[in-house]
Amino acid sequence: MTYNHLVRLKSRPRGFASRDNFTLAKEPIPDLREGEIAIETRFISLDPAMRGWMSDAKSYVPPVVLGDVMRAYAAGHIVASRHASFAAGDAVVGLFGVQSHPVVDGKMALKVDTRHAPLERWIGGLGMPGWTAYFGLLEVGQPKAGETLVVSAASGAVGSIVGQIGKIKGLRVVGIAGGADKCRYLTEELGFDAAIDYKAGNLADDLKAACPAGIDVYFENVGGVILDTVLAQMNLFGRIAVCGFISTYNATEPQAGPKNLRAVLVNRLRMQGLIVFDWAKRYPEAIAALGAWHAEGKLKLREDVRDGGIEAYPDVLNLLYTGGNFGKLVLRV
Amino acid sequence: MTYNHLVRLKSRPRGFASRDNFTLAKEPIPDLREGEIAIETRFISLDPAMRGWMSDAKSYVPPVVLGDVMRAYAAGHIVASRHASFAAGDAVVGLFGVQSHPVVDGKMALKVDTRHAPLERWIGGLGMPGWTAYFGLLEVGQPKAGETLVVSAASGAVGSIVGQIGKIKGLRVVGIAGGADKCRYLTEELGFDAAIDYKAGNLADDLKAACPAGIDVYFENVGGVILDTVLAQMNLFGRIAVCGFISTYNATEPQAGPKNLRAVLVNRLRMQGLIVFDWAKRYPEAIAALGAWHAEGKLKLREDVRDGGIEAYPDVLNLLYTGGNFGKLVLRV
Repeated sequence: MTYNHLVRLKSRPRGFASRDNFTLAKEPIPDLREGEIAIETRFISLDPAMRGWMSDAKSYVPPVVLGDVMRAYAAGHIVASRHASFAAGDAVVGLFGVQSHPVVDGKMALKVDTRHAPLERWIGGLGMPGWTAYFGLLEVGQPKAGETLVVSAASGAVGSIVGQIGKIKGLRVVGIAGGADKCRYLTEELGFDAAIDYKAGNLADDLKAACPAGIDVYFENVGGVILDTVLAQMNLFGRIAVCGFISTYNATEPQAGPKNLRAVLVNRLRMQGLIVFDWAKRYPEAIAALGAWHAEGKLKLREDVRDGGIEAYPDVLNLLYTGGNFGKLVLRV
Repeated sequence: MTYNHLVRLKSRPRGFASRDNFTLAKEPIPDLREGEIAIETRFISLDPAMRGWMSDAKSYVPPVVLGDVMRAYAAGHIVASRHASFAAGDAVVGLFGVQSHPVVDGKMALKVDTRHAPLERWIGGLGMPGWTAYFGLLEVGQPKAGETLVVSAASGAVGSIVGQIGKIKGLRVVGIAGGADKCRYLTEELGFDAAIDYKAGNLADDLKAACPAGIDVYFENVGGVILDTVLAQMNLFGRIAVCGFISTYNATEPQAGPKNLRAVLVNRLRMQGLIVFDWAKRYPEAIAALGAWHAEGKLKLREDVRDGGIEAYPDVLNLLYTGGNFGKLVLRV
């Protein structure tokens, strides 16, 4: 008999999440009710937002309730269906949680085509991180050909796509990432015009050298000192699309904001937060555009697939916050 | 013989400006060249931005050059004209500097009508501060009837007009000011729905009580702890129009930014800087709208006119940064 292996949130972390904050469980798979599907999970998506979902601070979605399955995007195959739109064998993605054999309402699942892209890519560059990059850059960043775009966490799931869309749209693109390997990947594989290793310790000078005409659009994933440094080099009427502040998510004390916020006033900057859910009705547009660029070879995607199964979830997740991943981080189940 | 009495910037202040940073001079009035006008200044405008103009930090206009007349808006009457559009006796306003008898190109001057409003009001609510309130609130704040607007430095030159335009546009308007007198003025004279004395020490709770439906638009004049407190109470898709950070202008060390910047992400806020010069082509629209509201009694304006002449400039200016003024601060010459 097959069991569902799952990870429940036991307590709210202070600082980094650890195995102590979760309960591993093994439960029988329930019988399907009308409209439901049974899934065998292959890949679980690790996303920076997860740390926020564990907290009870006011946020854009309710926190995961203590005792509930940890919220997660996942990809798998249907093993049984009582929903007219799905059949056994279909590849699907959705917010299925950290579990091996979810049973969910069919409305929760999106069928994907694995002929042109492997399954894990549909929770990566062709999935939610891709849509975030697409709408965040184009709708909030409002980039114009010839402008300079800077993106932080540039080798990550969202950042790597933001930069490539920037190139497709005719911008000068500069990525900020941690370490020489990631920087080489940005310029040599993804076609970024320049990459800056923030760990090298010369961020302000390196940024100035890479952006001789200043910065028009900043796609913000990290916060902290990087935001502060970029703020000081933004051009008149620049846009800052705030997608994440990953450097602060595991902080146990409130973090002071940027010292250079005055730049918002002086240079009439627009700083605007974005959550991909706000474009839910337009996901098909993003899927079509990203899929086409991917097929044409203009959009290169990279996954960092980790083994270890469900029980490795907390450890693998933390790679996101320490820069330990290289590409879209995914847990193989 | 009449002389021009003027104030030149001698050195760049650290912290508050003092008399030591300026030179008082007395010089002959030059002969008029073709196109110039000679003015007798009656009122000099004291504006928060002046502290920035004295600094050599990158800003939206070049700093005042050391040795030059201190930059200032002023209002006066023409005593002699070699410009076809002006005649002796005309009332004019413009960036004439801190001096008693400026001679300027006629292009620098705007003729004003003192039949319906006293001269000093044309460097106040009907002048640049009024235009700032008008475009800043309506264009950047994008207020909608029924929403809640919060404005800081609410009894000041810009804030008092922002709040009144908010009422005209059908919003709930809450002002933040320092002291019971200013708060009473906001609710009893200007028709604000509520006023909060930030000096009372209960800002977060008072704000929550005054804004039971949260805050949709924040018109920011002060920065610091007030910005941080407001950020935590902003609604989804709220707008923050950044007009000034007056609490930081005399700081000698960089000030840490808001701890609650994460609200920009979570609530998809738009924070945007504004400088009135960007709407220069539309000043006539603001002048017409403000003038009409003023004539209808919907827009009440208050000036705080100080005596002491040119030499009192540094001391009077500092009232702005200590909350010592009540209404648009003006120096009588």
